[in-house]
Amino acid sequence: MEYPWIGLIVGVLGVSLAGYFYYWVKRQEEGVEEARRIAKYIREGAQAFLRREYKTLAVYLVVMFIVLFVVGYIFSKYGLDFRSSITFIFGGILSAIAGYFGMSAATIANVRTTTALKEGIPKGLKVAFTGGAVMGLSVASLGLIGVSTAYIVFSHETQKLAAILFGFSFGASSIALFARVGGGIYTKAADVGADIVGKVEVGIPEDDPRNPAVIADNVGDNVGDVAGMGADLYESYVGSIIATIAIGIALGLKEYAEYAILVASMGLIASIVGILITANYRGDNVFKALNMGSITSVVLTAVLSGIVAYLILPKVAVSDIITGSQIVMTWNRTFMSLILGLVAGVVIGFVTQYYTSDQYRPTQEVAKAATTGPATDILAGMSVGMMSTLIPMITIALAMIVSYKLVGIYGISIAAVGMLSTLAMTMSMDAYGPIADNAAGIAEMARVGEDIRERAENLDAVGNTTAAIGKGFAIGSAALTALAFFANYSKYIASENIAVTNPSIVAGVFLGALMPFIFSSMAIRAVQRAAMEMVNEIRRQFREIPGILEGKETPDYSRCVDISTKAALREMILPTVSAILAPILVGVIPALGKEAVGGFIIGATASGFLLAVYMANAGGSWDNAKKYIEKGNLGGKGSDTHKASVVGDTVGDPLKDTAGPSLNILIKLMSIVALLFAPIFL
Amino acid sequence: MEYPWIGLIVGVLGVSLAGYFYYWVKRQEEGVEEARRIAKYIREGAQAFLRREYKTLAVYLVVMFIVLFVVGYIFSKYGLDFRSSITFIFGGILSAIAGYFGMSAATIANVRTTTALKEGIPKGLKVAFTGGAVMGLSVASLGLIGVSTAYIVFSHETQKLAAILFGFSFGASSIALFARVGGGIYTKAADVGADIVGKVEVGIPEDDPRNPAVIADNVGDNVGDVAGMGADLYESYVGSIIATIAIGIALGLKEYAEYAILVASMGLIASIVGILITANYRGDNVFKALNMGSITSVVLTAVLSGIVAYLILPKVAVSDIITGSQIVMTWNRTFMSLILGLVAGVVIGFVTQYYTSDQYRPTQEVAKAATTGPATDILAGMSVGMMSTLIPMITIALAMIVSYKLVGIYGISIAAVGMLSTLAMTMSMDAYGPIADNAAGIAEMARVGEDIRERAENLDAVGNTTAAIGKGFAIGSAALTALAFFANYSKYIASENIAVTNPSIVAGVFLGALMPFIFSSMAIRAVQRAAMEMVNEIRRQFREIPGILEGKETPDYSRCVDISTKAALREMILPTVSAILAPILVGVIPALGKEAVGGFIIGATASGFLLAVYMANAGGSWDNAKKYIEKGNLGGKGSDTHKASVVGDTVGDPLKDTAGPSLNILIKLMSIVALLFAPIFL
Repeated sequence: MEYPWIGLIVGVLGVSLAGYFYYWVKRQEEGVEEARRIAKYIREGAQAFLRREYKTLAVYLVVMFIVLFVVGYIFSKYGLDFRSSITFIFGGILSAIAGYFGMSAATIANVRTTTALKEGIPKGLKVAFTGGAVMGLSVASLGLIGVSTAYIVFSHETQKLAAILFGFSFGASSIALFARVGGGIYTKAADVGADIVGKVEVGIPEDDPRNPAVIADNVGDNVGDVAGMGADLYESYVGSIIATIAIGIALGLKEYAEYAILVASMGLIASIVGILITANYRGDNVFKALNMGSITSVVLTAVLSGIVAYLILPKVAVSDIITGSQIVMTWNRTFMSLILGLVAGVVIGFVTQYYTSDQYRPTQEVAKAATTGPATDILAGMSVGMMSTLIPMITIALAMIVSYKLVGIYGISIAAVGMLSTLAMTMSMDAYGPIADNAAGIAEMARVGEDIRERAENLDAVGNTTAAIGKGFAIGSAALTALAFFANYSKYIASENIAVTNPSIVAGVFLGALMPFIFSSMAIRAVQRAAMEMVNEIRRQFREIPGILEGKETPDYSRCVDISTKAALREMILPTVSAILAPILVGVIPALGKEAVGGFIIGATASGFLLAVYMANAGGSWDNAKKYIEKGNLGGKGSDTHKASVVGDTVGDPLKDTAGPSLNILIKLMSIVALLFAPIFL
Repeated sequence: MEYPWIGLIVGVLGVSLAGYFYYWVKRQEEGVEEARRIAKYIREGAQAFLRREYKTLAVYLVVMFIVLFVVGYIFSKYGLDFRSSITFIFGGILSAIAGYFGMSAATIANVRTTTALKEGIPKGLKVAFTGGAVMGLSVASLGLIGVSTAYIVFSHETQKLAAILFGFSFGASSIALFARVGGGIYTKAADVGADIVGKVEVGIPEDDPRNPAVIADNVGDNVGDVAGMGADLYESYVGSIIATIAIGIALGLKEYAEYAILVASMGLIASIVGILITANYRGDNVFKALNMGSITSVVLTAVLSGIVAYLILPKVAVSDIITGSQIVMTWNRTFMSLILGLVAGVVIGFVTQYYTSDQYRPTQEVAKAATTGPATDILAGMSVGMMSTLIPMITIALAMIVSYKLVGIYGISIAAVGMLSTLAMTMSMDAYGPIADNAAGIAEMARVGEDIRERAENLDAVGNTTAAIGKGFAIGSAALTALAFFANYSKYIASENIAVTNPSIVAGVFLGALMPFIFSSMAIRAVQRAAMEMVNEIRRQFREIPGILEGKETPDYSRCVDISTKAALREMILPTVSAILAPILVGVIPALGKEAVGGFIIGATASGFLLAVYMANAGGSWDNAKKYIEKGNLGGKGSDTHKASVVGDTVGDPLKDTAGPSLNILIKLMSIVALLFAPIFL
């Protein structure tokens, strides 16, 4: 039997488990009338948004299908293939299905978590985490199924296989960018708007049902942090596997190509074990439950992948694609590269935690800076965010250099696969966060009792930490995946004049580095404008319907949902389209050309990674500095210091949840576009 | 006669005129007792700071002198030269003299401007601008004298001339970084602290004598915006000339090498004409006066440089340093490259104006965003700042590519010289800004009458625009100068494996791009912490001496001056030292090495340029949005919208006046360090 069949089988196993989990969650008790009513609002809002988003995506998929088909046909003799249009559709649709399925699970798990918390924290954790695991398992399993299937179907096309598979990655990237940007704008327009009027102007707490934007805010958690994050990681996952396959094929080493699928398979098996451990944990220490599952899956993946490497990878000498020098590929060197990726992911996660958790000095200093007003709070967070790029950047550079020394560019690529191999577990933890957040929100809105709300907030607090770690992981894996694509791209330019001293390449680096700034500007502006619209709507409702604030009348939630939806759909188009066009433009302009595209990808990856880490961690730090004050430190809730910290938190929202995460996809998308269209730059 | 003597003669002419201007300003009437008293505080504070700063610098100069001497001696046969230690001291000391002289002129011109405004705007403009011209002329003339002298003295050392001259540039860079970082921290600690308590908490206006930090704030304008800016531009100026000389020598073309000195000489002559036109303008339209002088000097420089090029530059075919391909150097191609630099400077200036002036949409939108609170104001400014990088980055990339196509890397270098050739005029306008600002401050504090204060604010408003343009110019010229150094560096690595696809080079780009983030983090943090200390001191004085706010008691200005001084001296060391060590570290670490240093410089220049433009323009936009509201728009002074905009302005202060400008020098300093120490990376 061919190895990729293992990927398919494990993938089907994973998706079946996801299905089982879905129905298990659905069977749980939904709870009191009021909670169910609110949950229904959230669920319907989320599904309505996703359906509208997918309509736009459908148009895009069809147009791009035609483009790929035609371009692939015309440039067929230069290495393109029209069948990349088929894998493109396949990759896009699988991503959409994973997103829809996972989000549906999240929006039935939230209210059931609230209700389950009556029986204590372990039961609540089980429901919330199982709900998240539907997303985690769907994303990883469908990704694995997709790549394995495409590989099996087209594996006889040795010459064109890479070009065809890149289509799959491009489909995944495209959906991811729409989902991240759209979801990000949706969630933060609601969140920022709700906070500005609710917390700052009127002084009502988070998730207060009197706030007209409260439903939109909770919907946002699902469409942004569940669906958006899922599409992002799905893309990194399939991207890194495909990039590795392509390099293996280019080297003429089938076993090394297929090893990527096997690592992903082992990682999925290990993650399933980890998920079962966490979901069945009996105890009140939520953090420990997540850690146990997480560590188990990492260690098990390492062990299994090592065994597989030992069994199937031959010792073979090849000449490196870039330098042409001899490299001896062995199972243990490959395994070391893989471990390097795993470790790099863990390091970046810990750094993220250090800079954003209120347990450590940086975030405590940000909180302290709020004592002299919002300006110093914001400056302190900016400074923390910028400093937090130091270790992650060095880690990525190190992982890249060392893995390259071990087994050439194949090493860089397999390191990315290693980092992403436990995706099912990581993504489950990520999706658990917004479910717990929603559960706390529903507890507050439905007034189910103080003790349940406290337990829900307990779950939510841990979710915040896992979300921060997840973000660091998403950025790190995006950078490595982009580098893996870049390694593939390098074969198009390796024989030419690509000295870093060549002004065209320098210009490429400059223009590439520019993109994340422009992209972030658009994302931030979109949120800021939509949030202002939201603020004005909330102010209007409070002014025109005085009964709302007295709790006598229900606010008009749907208008706020509508503002977020429209803004998200309107503003996601331009950034996405420019991301796709930019590398093509650089490639076809005569003074730049395909060498400049190489510089362009490197510049974009460098500045995109730095900005993304900066934004994620500055935002996380502002957020947790505020929460630290809310715990009663430095004056506590309602003090001037607290108000100052709320401003910081609000500024951080679109940075950490819209612009920052979108950059992950920007750098991957631009790399895959460059790679896919490289033959036409000639 | 050798051409460089012309540089020496024109330089002496310029410095003589600066001396004449100084005594002319000194002869002007100083004014009423109260104004003189305040001016004395400011002058003494500024000089005290500069003296203390120079003490630290003296230690640094001596230590580095020894290092360069020893290293130059040991690595002599690899192309280093111990005499670079002599030019290093020479370059550093000339920078310090220019800074001290110019700042002394500024601190006597401020109060005399206030007094001269009694006779109307033209007289006030004349005093303020003449005061600024002392700085402008000193910086350009001393730079030209220094480079010409060093060239004349060492021109017989054809082999070692470049290495020796780079020492001069390194001296200039070192002083510049200390001056920019130290001055930037000083001025913004005072400004932010004064604004937070004065404007936001207590509600007293800018420059109110009751504010204990008001003197420190006005001192800061001089040590930051005059001395700091001067050292920055001095460095770009001599750096671009020296880089061009080095390339000319490497190509074996003496005329092309010396042409750089001649362009600077012509630019200085043209600037003198422009300065005289502006200073003698009779009319109330300050903007027109500055524009007339400015345009005259640009056009005249172009004409004179064109004539000189025609007269001395031979047509000659050479092989390009990077690609080895044939390039035909001609006077008209060279001249076109030069003009390209001049035009690029103008374009960047206009873009800066568009994004930061309240005449245009971006800044008006930032003001509008303040209607929903500080968070949206800040987000809008961030978005504007990021978007404002688009055209400047493309302009730099274009100038680089086109000038390279014209005459190879010599073209890139001479474009930088072109952009900087009218430095004397540009710097005069830059220094005019803080003088007018001080004049307005003194008018307010000394209560010399409403009409004079209004005229002073009129001068100040124009100064704000020139400051913004000057900042854009400083950044653009820094990027081109760094590229000119890089072009020189490329000869050390041209024959080796420097493909942009080489992971060591990619790692170099990543680490280089990282530096501006870390550096900015340190600068912002330094200001934020010092500002908090300042806030607490001001709060303490208001609390313990209630007579201050009633205007019955004088606050203790000296304690605030002391906080700024200590913070600046303490916090300027670490960033500067790390900037010097980083490229050396990258060069000597085996896995990285001299190829990685190439990537490092490019990465640093790309991300440094983008961050610097972003910070400068976001800051400028927040500042002018606030001023736009203060003019009575959107609720005017004292409204919630105004308060929100003050928060934005305060956040922007350290970005636009500390971190951003320091990045200009960071990228130049790291490039010159790489270039100077390149022989030891082998």
